Formats: sequence, C-alpha cells, structure tokens
Amino acid sequence: MSTAFMTQEQFLNHWQGHRNLTRKTIEKFPEKDLFEFRIGGMRTFADLIKELLSIALPGLEGIIANKTDGYSHDLPQATKAELLAEWDRQTPLITEAYKQLKPEQFPENYNLFGQFNAPIYENLLYFMDNEVHHRAQGYVYLRALGIEPPMFWER
Amino acid sequence: MSTAFMTQEQFLNHWQGHRNLTRKTIEKFPEKDLFEFRIGGMRTFADLIKELLSIALPGLEGIIANKTDGYSHDLPQATKAELLAEWDRQTPLITEAYKQLKPEQFPENYNLFGQFNAPIYENLLYFMDNEVHHRAQGYVYLRALGIEPPMFWER
Repeated sequence: MSTAFMTQEQFLNHWQGHRNLTRKTIEKFPEKDLFEFRIGGMRTFADLIKELLSIALPGLEGIIANKTDGYSHDLPQATKAELLAEWDRQTPLITEAYKQLKPEQFPENYNLFGQFNAPIYENLLYFMDNEVHHRAQGYVYLRALGIEPPMFWER
Repeated sequence: MSTAFMTQEQFLNHWQGHRNLTRKTIEKFPEKDLFEFRIGGMRTFADLIKELLSIALPGLEGIIANKTDGYSHDLPQATKAELLAEWDRQTPLITEAYKQLKPEQFPENYNLFGQFNAPIYENLLYFMDNEVHHRAQGYVYLRALGIEPPMFWER
C-alpha cells in the first residue's frame, strides 16, 4: 500500500497554481506602489517578488546540479512588465527542472544555498510556503491601498 | 518505484510545524491589538485565527466522518489566553484525526463543508496554505505595530 500524501506531479500542479495566483497579485499593483509602497519598515512587494524569483528556480537548479552556491535577491527588474516577464520566463523552466527530480531524491537531504540543510521535499515546500507567505503580505498592501486582491481560490 | 512527493506522516509533521509557528505569532500580539488592530478594512488577527480554528479540525473531522456540514467562524474566544487554549486543545486532536485517514483516501474527492469539492490532499493543503496566508498577514500587523514577528524558520 502506498503511503503517499501526494504524488510528484500533484505537488508541481499545486505549486504552479500558487504561482499563477501570485502573478495575478503582482498585476493588481499600480506600477508606482509595487516599487514604493511598504508597511512597518517591510520591503516593497517588488522586493518580495524578487526574493521569490531568486529562490525557487535557482534553488531547484541547484538541487538538480547538486550545487550549493548562495543566492542574491538583488535582481535588475525595474518595472511591473519586467517583473512579470521574469515570472513568466521562470514558469516553464521550473516545470522542466522539477521533472528532472527522481522520486527517490525527495527524502534525501540537500544543503539549500549552502545554508539550509533539509530533505529535498522540505526545500520544495519552503519555496511554496515562502511564496504564500510573501504574497499574503502583498494582499495586506493591496487592502491598505484600497485595492481588492485576487480571490485566494483563483489559480 | 514510488512517486510520492512526501508521505502521510511527513505532511502532518510539516503542518504541525506551521501550527507551532502560528501559535508563536499569536503570542507576539499585545492583548488589545490582537482583538482590535486591523489594516485596510481587514479582519483583526483574532478573527483570522478564529477562521483557522473553525476550518482545519472541523474540516478534518468532516472528512473522517464523511459529513459535509457547513462551518462557522463565529467562535466565543475573547482573550489571547482563550485563543491559545483552543489552539492547544486542537493540536493533538488534529494529529489523532489525521492518523485515521487511509492513504488511498488522499486522491479521492471530498466536498469540504458542502462547498469545495476537491481531492482530500488538496483540502488538507488548503488548511495549511490558508494558515500560512493569514499568519503572514499577522506578520504585517506586527510590523505595523513595531513588533518583530517570529522567524519564519521557527517551528
């Protein structure tokens, strides 16, 4: 009997669904507020998105190549269109890289960015959880700006 | 060859880790702000926590009993101590109920609260994703109040 909570493919679909909702959240921001609005000394939503862009695909590529290089959140995108273009560029690359993972790798430990040593399924859950976390902060920014965020169920 | 992304037990541990971080987040709020502070017309963090308390365990119990009754977020807890006590009461009950799930149930469809028809693993991911989402909104409230939230890695 299998004890799988979900399969390799089901996780990918769930994650890409979240990525689609995050894309819609970026789209809701007025250009200026995306790069300037912040609450309580936190980063702008553009900077939170740059963190996501510099973690998931680079981390996944590191796992595939078994490299533990560090990361940099200092990305060059300076407009909403550029952020969305980079988001869209990464979408098929994430799917492609993820499909190279072998099922027996998921419980194996990997030292993400040379800093976070955990089983590979935990590294991947972190990519998704961290995205849900920062997107939700974008929801508060949108509400504070008087803008209705996308429905949580829209994927 | 297994194609499991993670096992039934690994998901429970990951979820309960998130629940532990959410508990720490509740603890960081001053009593008054927990029930009064809000941004942009959103709910207070106490009300967001009541949503979580009225979804995960009741939803899970519904899945186990195969009942599709509705839910109510209108819970009676009126102090931080009462919210934390209810959180702690639910912790072992979630573990106990979850362990009654049979692995073959995860891909089966279940009409959560008579409203959200999806595979059971998606219902369970929703409980967790929704918690990460609302907890992250609590992080923004804490920052706006000048209070440092718990580290995202503390589980």
